[in-house]
Amino acid sequence: QRKHRIAVIPGDGIGKETTPEGLRVLDAAARRFGFELELKEYDWSCETYVQTGKMMPDDGMDRLKDSDSIFLGAVGWPGVPDHVSLWGLLIPIRRQFDQYVSLRPCKLLPGSKSPLAGRGPEDIDFYVVRENTEGEYSSIGGKMFPGTDREFVSQQTVLTRIGCDRIMKYAFELAMTRKRKKVTSATKSNGITFTMPYWDERFDAMAKNYPEVTTDQFHIDILCAHFVQHPDWFDVVVGSNLFGDILSDLGPAVAGSIGIAASANINPEKTFPSMFEPVHGSAPDIAGKFIANPIGQIWSGAMMLEHLGEKAAADCIVQTIEKLLAEGGPRTRDMGGQAGTVDVGKAIAEAV
Amino acid sequence: QRKHRIAVIPGDGIGKETTPEGLRVLDAAARRFGFELELKEYDWSCETYVQTGKMMPDDGMDRLKDSDSIFLGAVGWPGVPDHVSLWGLLIPIRRQFDQYVSLRPCKLLPGSKSPLAGRGPEDIDFYVVRENTEGEYSSIGGKMFPGTDREFVSQQTVLTRIGCDRIMKYAFELAMTRKRKKVTSATKSNGITFTMPYWDERFDAMAKNYPEVTTDQFHIDILCAHFVQHPDWFDVVVGSNLFGDILSDLGPAVAGSIGIAASANINPEKTFPSMFEPVHGSAPDIAGKFIANPIGQIWSGAMMLEHLGEKAAADCIVQTIEKLLAEGGPRTRDMGGQAGTVDVGKAIAEAV
Ligand SMILES: CC(C)[C@H](C(=O)O)[C@@H](O)C(=O)O
Ligand SMILES: CC(C)[C@H](C(=O)O)[C@@H](O)C(=O)O
Repeated sequence: QRKHRIAVIPGDGIGKETTPEGLRVLDAAARRFGFELELKEYDWSCETYVQTGKMMPDDGMDRLKDSDSIFLGAVGWPGVPDHVSLWGLLIPIRRQFDQYVSLRPCKLLPGSKSPLAGRGPEDIDFYVVRENTEGEYSSIGGKMFPGTDREFVSQQTVLTRIGCDRIMKYAFELAMTRKRKKVTSATKSNGITFTMPYWDERFDAMAKNYPEVTTDQFHIDILCAHFVQHPDWFDVVVGSNLFGDILSDLGPAVAGSIGIAASANINPEKTFPSMFEPVHGSAPDIAGKFIANPIGQIWSGAMMLEHLGEKAAADCIVQTIEKLLAEGGPRTRDMGGQAGTVDVGKAIAEAV
Repeated sequence: QRKHRIAVIPGDGIGKETTPEGLRVLDAAARRFGFELELKEYDWSCETYVQTGKMMPDDGMDRLKDSDSIFLGAVGWPGVPDHVSLWGLLIPIRRQFDQYVSLRPCKLLPGSKSPLAGRGPEDIDFYVVRENTEGEYSSIGGKMFPGTDREFVSQQTVLTRIGCDRIMKYAFELAMTRKRKKVTSATKSNGITFTMPYWDERFDAMAKNYPEVTTDQFHIDILCAHFVQHPDWFDVVVGSNLFGDILSDLGPAVAGSIGIAASANINPEKTFPSMFEPVHGSAPDIAGKFIANPIGQIWSGAMMLEHLGEKAAADCIVQTIEKLLAEGGPRTRDMGGQAGTVDVGKAIAEAV
């Protein structure tokens, strides 16, 4: 029997509530599709930070290394600054495991509601492919003349040829698997004149290798406007770390699915484990009440199965989610229902 | 009689068609409200670049310096790269005249249509205040190891204390003139960890001076999502050069007014002339046909009059635009009508 080793990190807040529901559905899929999941759970979180002074133990990365995938809830809690919680757990995993692709589906699911007038499921169905290791999120920067009127801070954006080429290749390969075969590049080469023209150059070079793929490019300002005005234009959108971050929140917002959006942090070569997490955060305001929507977590689980080669199981989970929403199954409050986190998890697990 | 000296730069494409309509309305306002406009027109554009090798003559900035304001159409044309057209005209004016505030209204005008479901004029009425001289649009950067696999580019983002403080002060002062008195800061301090935490620090410091103003802050990714989901949350939104750029396209897109949005590049101390321009570009696809919508240009003219102290005239123009739209006056094609650029300009001028 096929076996996949999964490291589970529920993390903080509603992550602790949604992860078990994700696992419930994964377990159902394993039984139905005949594979085994070997789970190892880690309690690394802001809570352990407060107790131990560390988000994860010194050998944390080593312990994760042997797993096939990492299944993450959410990280972050009031009182623990982001540079501790995120930069002590989430970001090191993305970087040290070279998860250079952040893949985020933007999909108007049947039964969920877009804030846009007159848009249905056929209008919004694309992927944002985000570079996940370099760019604007760099580790080079500092402050000069502190405490004086001349005080300034600076930070470098760094784009490497390797970094640009591999993310663009991923985007084009993804487009080749899709019906429309189109890649849109997010740029800002008219304003940010050292890094972004290079991004454009590498995009054009990569496009030459894929004559079947249609391409276009927009500056990030007008591209955000187009997401709102013409979400139907997009198929695969590729962007730098920052632009991809922005677009992969804006896309689900436009699709009305930001509370349930999924994301994958992928190391395509499988040299290191990949990590799967919902787009939403730890939501301190509703944590502890078991009313959070677990669909983002469950959908992330489906992306994980696809990455592990269990495509049939992955498709089954996504279809089950869509069916449940379309047919008016149990819904949490954010979707206008009364159901709890566990109700939704159980309903999807049973249907799978 | 009050006299204002205006430098007019129609620029390229539809800029040549919308600027005369802007002037037509300004002229009507001058006659009605009893002031004089002394116009000097400059043909600086991509066309002159092709003829002379320069976007503006060597003493261009000197010639503009004595005017009270600059009234710009649009800059850019296919065949002339952005780093020539924009960085040879638009950007130097913004920077050398220290127009450190880019002010952009996001307003759902009565009679125009938002792409959002169920939103009316009462829901969308805020300002984006964008830092306009530093930040991500920096002049420090370069490439290493060109032509090899190790090739990389880098560019510095620079935020100064002076730059942050003065834009934030402007935002808070603006909020003090408004009913809701609220300022929202666009940040990304959880990912961009040298520059953006400094932005937050300066924002918090400035907020202390304005106890009557309510504040909040969002990371740019979720802020873009909120623009779509809750545009009614916002009153004054302050952002860095790049974040302000993004939000001031997204805001009008959400309001359904991107084709007619206005913008001001302001030097609040009036040491140098300020510049007023529509948000739209030169639109090569429709240039020469006189079908472009001149409202963005006309609205920019109103912002110019307000800056010049002609508040009554400015209000009159904005109200006339709103009335025309609400009452079904002539509309260009982008707004579902059949009218030409000149028809709309004349209708507004006459009503003023
Ligand atoms: C043309 C471009 C450089 C410019 C900018 O990004 O500043 C434009 O998008 C704007 O918003 O005025
Ligand atoms: C928490 C934050 C650092 C993170 C990011 O910007 O990468 C988040 O917004 C995301 O999109 O995963």
